[in-house]
Amino acid sequence: MSVGDEFVLDFARPERIGLEEAIYAAGKSPVQIDAILEAAAARGASLLLTRLDPDKHAALAEAHRRRIDYCGVSRTAIFGTPRPLRGPSRIGIVAAGTSDVPVAREAERTLAYQGHAATLFADVGVAGLWRLTRRLEEIRALPVLIVAAGMDAALPSVLGGLVASALIAVPTSVGYGVAEGGRTALDAILASCAPGITVVNIDNGYGAACAAMRWLHAARMLASAASEPT
Amino acid sequence: MSVGDEFVLDFARPERIGLEEAIYAAGKSPVQIDAILEAAAARGASLLLTRLDPDKHAALAEAHRRRIDYCGVSRTAIFGTPRPLRGPSRIGIVAAGTSDVPVAREAERTLAYQGHAATLFADVGVAGLWRLTRRLEEIRALPVLIVAAGMDAALPSVLGGLVASALIAVPTSVGYGVAEGGRTALDAILASCAPGITVVNIDNGYGAACAAMRWLHAARMLASAASEPT
Amino acid sequence: MSVGDEFVLDFARPERIGLEEAIYAAGKSPVQIDAILEAAAARGASLLLTRLDPDKHAALAEAHRRRIDYCGVSRTAIFGTPRPLRGPSRIGIVAAGTSDVPVAREAERTLAYQGHAATLFADVGVAGLWRLTRRLEEIRALPVLIVAAGMDAALPSVLGGLVASALIAVPTSVGYGVAEGGRTALDAILASCAPGITVVNIDNGYGAACAAMRWLHAARMLASAASEPT
Amino acid sequence: MSVGDEFVLDFARPERIGLEEAIYAAGKSPVQIDAILEAAAARGASLLLTRLDPDKHAALAEAHRRRIDYCGVSRTAIFGTPRPLRGPSRIGIVAAGTSDVPVAREAERTLAYQGHAATLFADVGVAGLWRLTRRLEEIRALPVLIVAAGMDAALPSVLGGLVASALIAVPTSVGYGVAEGGRTALDAILASCAPGITVVNIDNGYGAACAAMRWLHAARMLASAASEPT
Amino acid sequence: MSVGDEFVLDFARPERIGLEEAIYAAGKSPVQIDAILEAAAARGASLLLTRLDPDKHAALAEAHRRRIDYCGVSRTAIFGTPRPLRGPSRIGIVAAGTSDVPVAREAERTLAYQGHAATLFADVGVAGLWRLTRRLEEIRALPVLIVAAGMDAALPSVLGGLVASALIAVPTSVGYGVAEGGRTALDAILASCAPGITVVNIDNGYGAACAAMRWLHAARMLASAASEPT
Amino acid sequence: MSVGDEFVLDFARPERIGLEEAIYAAGKSPVQIDAILEAAAARGASLLLTRLDPDKHAALAEAHRRRIDYCGVSRTAIFGTPRPLRGPSRIGIVAAGTSDVPVAREAERTLAYQGHAATLFADVGVAGLWRLTRRLEEIRALPVLIVAAGMDAALPSVLGGLVASALIAVPTSVGYGVAEGGRTALDAILASCAPGITVVNIDNGYGAACAAMRWLHAARMLASAASEPT
Amino acid sequence: MSVGDEFVLDFARPERIGLEEAIYAAGKSPVQIDAILEAAAARGASLLLTRLDPDKHAALAEAHRRRIDYCGVSRTAIFGTPRPLRGPSRIGIVAAGTSDVPVAREAERTLAYQGHAATLFADVGVAGLWRLTRRLEEIRALPVLIVAAGMDAALPSVLGGLVASALIAVPTSVGYGVAEGGRTALDAILASCAPGITVVNIDNGYGAACAAMRWLHAARMLASAASEPT
Amino acid sequence: MSVGDEFVLDFARPERIGLEEAIYAAGKSPVQIDAILEAAAARGASLLLTRLDPDKHAALAEAHRRRIDYCGVSRTAIFGTPRPLRGPSRIGIVAAGTSDVPVAREAERTLAYQGHAATLFADVGVAGLWRLTRRLEEIRALPVLIVAAGMDAALPSVLGGLVASALIAVPTSVGYGVAEGGRTALDAILASCAPGITVVNIDNGYGAACAAMRWLHAARMLASAASEPT
Repeated sequence: MSVGDEFVLDFARPERIGLEEAIYAAGKSPVQIDAILEAAAARGASLLLTRLDPDKHAALAEAHRRRIDYCGVSRTAIFGTPRPLRGPSRIGIVAAGTSDVPVAREAERTLAYQGHAATLFADVGVAGLWRLTRRLEEIRALPVLIVAAGMDAALPSVLGGLVASALIAVPTSVGYGVAEGGRTALDAILASCAPGITVVNIDNGYGAACAAMRWLHAARMLASAASEPT
Repeated sequence: MSVGDEFVLDFARPERIGLEEAIYAAGKSPVQIDAILEAAAARGASLLLTRLDPDKHAALAEAHRRRIDYCGVSRTAIFGTPRPLRGPSRIGIVAAGTSDVPVAREAERTLAYQGHAATLFADVGVAGLWRLTRRLEEIRALPVLIVAAGMDAALPSVLGGLVASALIAVPTSVGYGVAEGGRTALDAILASCAPGITVVNIDNGYGAACAAMRWLHAARMLASAASEPT
Repeated sequence: MSVGDEFVLDFARPERIGLEEAIYAAGKSPVQIDAILEAAAARGASLLLTRLDPDKHAALAEAHRRRIDYCGVSRTAIFGTPRPLRGPSRIGIVAAGTSDVPVAREAERTLAYQGHAATLFADVGVAGLWRLTRRLEEIRALPVLIVAAGMDAALPSVLGGLVASALIAVPTSVGYGVAEGGRTALDAILASCAPGITVVNIDNGYGAACAAMRWLHAARMLASAASEPT
Repeated sequence: MSVGDEFVLDFARPERIGLEEAIYAAGKSPVQIDAILEAAAARGASLLLTRLDPDKHAALAEAHRRRIDYCGVSRTAIFGTPRPLRGPSRIGIVAAGTSDVPVAREAERTLAYQGHAATLFADVGVAGLWRLTRRLEEIRALPVLIVAAGMDAALPSVLGGLVASALIAVPTSVGYGVAEGGRTALDAILASCAPGITVVNIDNGYGAACAAMRWLHAARMLASAASEPT
Repeated sequence: MSVGDEFVLDFARPERIGLEEAIYAAGKSPVQIDAILEAAAARGASLLLTRLDPDKHAALAEAHRRRIDYCGVSRTAIFGTPRPLRGPSRIGIVAAGTSDVPVAREAERTLAYQGHAATLFADVGVAGLWRLTRRLEEIRALPVLIVAAGMDAALPSVLGGLVASALIAVPTSVGYGVAEGGRTALDAILASCAPGITVVNIDNGYGAACAAMRWLHAARMLASAASEPT
Repeated sequence: MSVGDEFVLDFARPERIGLEEAIYAAGKSPVQIDAILEAAAARGASLLLTRLDPDKHAALAEAHRRRIDYCGVSRTAIFGTPRPLRGPSRIGIVAAGTSDVPVAREAERTLAYQGHAATLFADVGVAGLWRLTRRLEEIRALPVLIVAAGMDAALPSVLGGLVASALIAVPTSVGYGVAEGGRTALDAILASCAPGITVVNIDNGYGAACAAMRWLHAARMLASAASEPT
Repeated sequence: MSVGDEFVLDFARPERIGLEEAIYAAGKSPVQIDAILEAAAARGASLLLTRLDPDKHAALAEAHRRRIDYCGVSRTAIFGTPRPLRGPSRIGIVAAGTSDVPVAREAERTLAYQGHAATLFADVGVAGLWRLTRRLEEIRALPVLIVAAGMDAALPSVLGGLVASALIAVPTSVGYGVAEGGRTALDAILASCAPGITVVNIDNGYGAACAAMRWLHAARMLASAASEPT
Repeated sequence: MSVGDEFVLDFARPERIGLEEAIYAAGKSPVQIDAILEAAAARGASLLLTRLDPDKHAALAEAHRRRIDYCGVSRTAIFGTPRPLRGPSRIGIVAAGTSDVPVAREAERTLAYQGHAATLFADVGVAGLWRLTRRLEEIRALPVLIVAAGMDAALPSVLGGLVASALIAVPTSVGYGVAEGGRTALDAILASCAPGITVVNIDNGYGAACAAMRWLHAARMLASAASEPT
């Protein structure tokens, strides 16, 4: 079995679930990734790659790298052409601390790749509540919020009591001691007494963006249902 | 300090975050709950109570119990009058197995309390995929899906690859051995390779319903933004 | 070896560490507890008992129960005479939710037993931030704060960013799913990005009160050192 | 005690349990491994080495390396001559994602070393169910299936509801956040509601292959028992 | 939605995966179970129920209980008529200790329900190796072995080095301290250095029996393939 | 969004909670840290940096490094001018073993940065109780004690029974096997039967120092309250 | 298979490993235990039963109960005649707190059953070090020490630095919060920096006594070897 | 405070507890270790260093390295002169697999440093029981056994049922998946149904040797007590 048999690209995914195929690069070798890019290129398709370490990025074929827009902070690569932006930003991405910015950027670039603008708010954690409150009106005006927070992840709880917007929290692995790895942040958000907060996997900025896009899709379904005679 | 000082009801919550106050009964004594209901009654307010065990329900004041609509399966109580239903069902609640029905019912009653209809699909887990596929078109037509699943919780992953709808998964504590308590179900959903699935706490049907209502609110914000001149 | 050999009361403790002997009743039989009370009575000493379940309390010798001030909410018993109160309250006890009141009461009664007044603030959790802010000035005026919080325990983090007072957090076992048992609350507080918060064991209202009394002792040492010529 | 006293090769193993001796290289030094290969060579025996990192492989004696067939993807080495293939493939090896291929290859090479052909199916995970269903008939026709899956490992559950074949699942350590290390994949498979799935240790492609060979042995015992007069 | 909508019986399961539908009773109410039995009776079908506590069994409708063969040791119920036995025993069920017998019996009755005889060996754990060795020849003669063991679960490891038969281990929750709940037994088996042992969930005698039946099915597929011209 | 938007310095923190802003360097890039130092320099402010690895320190701008007092043992950097010392040492820092010194030094330098002297006691763990007892009088004379201990962390328990001073324990990640990462040390301190010990996160010397400063603040509040007419 | 086939008593154990057969009653039914006692009685053998709850003891056959010496504190039963005592006490059993006495008693009775005297020291935990030091000379004079301690289990560490005797620690499940279940006590002892402390399972007073008897046996082997010409 | 204040050597330890001071090098810097060796040299004392990585060994002062006997396999260093051997070997060290040899060597060298001979048995794990049985008589003749085993650690259980000698088990961190880190090995030994096995921390060959030396001391105490008139 050749490398080409080791993957099956899912180009029908957008029709099925409204989301583009993306490649999780962490568990794959440069040889496998190059073969995947080859297949995408042959079809004229674009691809988003997540968790692509700088070393692995550097090991890709020169011809592929030339077509890649790479971001070292979020370790994401956009191969080919992203979709054009679809209008004004309706999604806020809130990073509790400066150290949570890489995860926030992964979400931002995943959205941008599929044509969605987003507004980033950084370092608004609750240890200094004034940093949050001075931006609260801006944040509250956005219907969908992605909130990246590590350590004790108290920000989603506090936001959950202040805004009516939809909330997708991303726990991050930022922290040490009991916070190391992000399990504490994850569990704290799940245990929040502020109602209606949802969560994705630790450091999963990509998944949070996908969830936001599912919700935009749902909103379109609701809007078209509302305009139908019932 | 009297019992009346031990709680502060948040009647301004709907204006602030679009969700009604609800009482988590598990950690409270019948004396505390009766005092809370007293305060609500004095104000003419309704209340939703979650995690109210049958024994605790039976220990409440007779006058309060007469005004309560109690459901033993989901251990929820609606005190006073719920909001009128706001139109056709746009939310599906999918229970992977028969044992997941209590959690699904908690979500259903939370939605109903605030005026939202929902459609329940039970016992459509992936061990017999035909049970899911025969209902798939109905499920796919609903923009928002709450999915309750215990044990290995493979259902959200499979659904996530088949529908474009928004997905809120509720892991349940159904199961034994490594499944006991629901941590395996929770982690399996978080680790899902189907993109864009969000999660709430184990057995938290109430929270899943609140998340759905946040999203309906976001959809209304998006709709009104879309109809504004930009 | 008789029951009388199974315990050794530490009546010299106040001189050594400034704290009275107390009896952890959870792991002891009524026979053992009665023998301990007998020994205390013989010496004319008072005793605080913690974790004394109502059933165990009811199983104690009638003569002992007559000398006990029992609180079923906090499961504490004061045997004999507590110390007289030493002046106005300098310690605040903040309970995030109504369900955290039993732990707060354990701290309050431990302090009272040794002659310290305290002020209780209940149901001021961050899910409705206004409940906290309307009491903030009162809370801020107290130099020492004990904060009991379960679930995600975001309250200590938020308070830690708002007040300069000393903070002793007590995670509580209130909650279900990932919050069950209190480990999430404990870890969230330890991981807090608000600096200078200290923690005691889950549900350990007694220990939090002891820590507060150690700090009052330290303050007296500092005050007398300050008044000495250096 | 010399290095030669630090190991005892089990050349009688095939007669006893039907499986060849194999060397787990991860915890052994190149000096120890060279001594083991020396002993095998002296006896004219072949050996399979698992978990042999490229660096450790490169550190082995040149004379040994010349007799080794090394696979960097699966980190396995075959020293000497494997057994000839025993007929057509009866075993399927199914890798849920491209990142699970190394574990699948370890199983494939363990089988090949003992003379068993196998058929590999890669990237057929349930996030895009069509990738599985288009190969389902081929998979169903094989009596024994090894299924390697990481992250949420939903594939064995889905397959368990679709095929009657014997199923040996291998959870893999592919994934991040709650999936890191493979415990989530392991527990999800153990908790599966599809009946009759068995599991081996995380990333243990070698063990899955051995289990398959035990079952082929059992089938031969059953077949010879069936042909005997009872 | 009525109780009848809360379950969907999978009567096509035998054709699809070779295993009969079974009902996991632990998470279901007597009302739900009675409705399920009603549906099975209406169709003339038999059913196996697992994890049916004596109290729940006693709460079932009298008419249903009359048709049930109940075993309190294994908490299994056979409703209706099991299949006739299909020939001599080819499956051994080995219980390491007396306390593991309930799990072994669950496996035995699951097999019997589908027409398979099995031979039980009890209290042959490795703390007294002679108890195992005196039965070893009998055990070795059976092609398929189910091994139930709790605490440190050393028995599967030792057996794995002594027999060539197929091995399905069932860790049990027998034990206290670090053994409580069965996780230690499970992990010890997964970590075994004896090659080719497979595992099912803790206390899952039912699943072990299903795995054994899958393997018997695989053996039949192999046998019929062997008799075909290749 | 530029790097300058990724952080918001909290220069009002001393007024609010009595503690200076500090920068947790572990999750930040040299680019981010240089931007932060730039902003502080522009305002004429000093800054404490914690968890600054030697490599990251070396990667900072030369102009910044010239203004930094760096300590490789504790990985802390003081940028600009620390506050002048405020009088004699009232705080003891006790390191159970030599390996706990880095954490003790982090606490010492955090205190020094804000003008507080401290006295360090090293290698006084309980395995050789004489090492503790020969320093006990010195230790007992200090009103506030920070105790850093790894492995089994028995030192805080023993000290807690010997001194009346306030106790802030810092579990350290020193150790291997079950002690690795510091969870055992943390839990042992939390479970201590010596009353009134408080804890901060593993290896959090910075947080212990902040807690000590909160308590000094509380003592000043108590002292001024005591001198007021009540 | 009858109940009599569910167990195999190991009467040859004393000859093989120097320890009498004992019955772990927790996982066995009264029917099974009665059958075991029957078999022992038939052979004229004595038996020790551990973990025999009062309810289960009361459910045994009256004829058996008459021959049992039952201790409700330690839940142990001695059936038949224990061995006569073999001389003065050489073994100390040290219980850190009053709540650890049941585990200490299990060890004491296991030793007594096989003819070994022991000396019990109760409530000598390190929270009040004087309680330990006043008994230290007595303790130090005993060559073998069993130390039962729960919560933070600091006592074995402290003793390990003070005495040269052999130390077998038994962590107990006494405690709440992070101490619940005994894992913290177990890990703290394993992580102790006092060298040469050994551990048995949580609450395993029986196992500690068996370890002590193994060591007495080893001492006899050493003594007889010393008296031989080498 | 200088480096010389960061440690306090415990030269009185042999008189107090019969064991020489030893230095745990893992958490110490070469600067600290050199200072410790300096202090020992100044006093004419020898020292054992454990967990000294080759890199750290190479970084020590040349003058110190010349006086060190270093073993890279066990990462132990003997500084100065070990004690002369005290007679024939009475201690067996049994390594279950080749990968467990480093831990066994740490025990062997710790014993040798204090003058005790030991006999090493390697690769006698239970996966091939004949490897154990062919050495069993030799092993059984030694009164004290240290048993190092990783993965499932079934060897101590099996040995515990075969020999009467004293057993000190050392779980090792050898293994992957659920075995990684050694927790499974540790728990399996603690849960063993073979009575009287004691355990030390994972990979703690040093501690096992110290435990053995405590027992030899206890045997001397017992022997001298036996020869006294009682």
